[in-house]
Amino acid sequence: MKLLEDRIERDGQVLGEDVLKVDNFLNHQIDPDLMTALGAEFYARFKDTKITKILTVESSGIAPALAAGMQFHVPVVFARKHKSLTLKDDLYTAEVYSFTKKTANMIAIAQKFLGPADTVLIVDDFLANGQAVEGLIDIIGQADATLAGVGIVIEKTFQKGRKLLDDRHIHVESLARIAAFENGHVVFEQED
Amino acid sequence: MKLLEDRIERDGQVLGEDVLKVDNFLNHQIDPDLMTALGAEFYARFKDTKITKILTVESSGIAPALAAGMQFHVPVVFARKHKSLTLKDDLYTAEVYSFTKKTANMIAIAQKFLGPADTVLIVDDFLANGQAVEGLIDIIGQADATLAGVGIVIEKTFQKGRKLLDDRHIHVESLARIAAFENGHVVFEQED
Repeated sequence: MKLLEDRIERDGQVLGEDVLKVDNFLNHQIDPDLMTALGAEFYARFKDTKITKILTVESSGIAPALAAGMQFHVPVVFARKHKSLTLKDDLYTAEVYSFTKKTANMIAIAQKFLGPADTVLIVDDFLANGQAVEGLIDIIGQADATLAGVGIVIEKTFQKGRKLLDDRHIHVESLARIAAFENGHVVFEQED
Repeated sequence: MKLLEDRIERDGQVLGEDVLKVDNFLNHQIDPDLMTALGAEFYARFKDTKITKILTVESSGIAPALAAGMQFHVPVVFARKHKSLTLKDDLYTAEVYSFTKKTANMIAIAQKFLGPADTVLIVDDFLANGQAVEGLIDIIGQADATLAGVGIVIEKTFQKGRKLLDDRHIHVESLARIAAFENGHVVFEQED
């Protein structure tokens, strides 16, 4: 998606070998007009599937997932990373390891919000090692819901997440695909 | 706001003396169409002020704040509750005590996203004791930014947050104002 690639080139910041910081438009400061455009693009790519629910993980996934939900007009559920006092029973849970933070978290979704009648689109801000998406897929399995596909804002194709999903024949759409970082610059995957 | 009050009556769940659970449309499962309506209402109530930025706190504030940002076409910044590896320097921070969770958190915003040129609208899902909003106001002060006002989805008028803000002559707009819970039902404040 040209608009997103241009924005990454303009405002993204490459840190070290494999970190792209996009905190000024995606995951700390959010550009709402860009989110609207991303939501429309997710809709264009998945509109032929009858999505009933969008699933993501707090916090960075919420903005693109909500923008997608506004296009599909279906509920957006975000998994919480730890339990609160008013959300403790009847949960689907999965463990998610963060390579960035080097910690494992539990993610949880109230069982009442996901069931066998649901066809789910997962939306997340990044796909790198795929741990968060794997956790959400695990939860979709626990709920006997159907996974329609995975919509990602920024994918790093050189990390293992995409391959894990391709090996399972999951429909993945990433709006920007980064093949490498070279000399502090982003190299995008060449699309066919 | 009638639409929101109706939704609270239909889907809200009163727990004990002072907790309203709205996790099926606001803070776990999110209704995107409702968010769009809330965003439009915040715009209607604050459109005469030249807002440059919307500020909230992860995670439950993000959806209504983003929906408002889509109307104002200004960036939305969400304060993070704890630091990540890629967000550690040059932060404005404030301590926020949660009466629900009975814990204190630091909230933090990168300094580069808030400055003296900004006129800020705070948006949050709930106003109860006002601790999160007070933390954000503290941060706005540290940044020498201007506070335009506070937009709240659901206010519990019987807790102290609203009075704290009124005492400081801050412009507060709450889209639903709950005066009490009686026998498990919500009693809304009578508007003039």
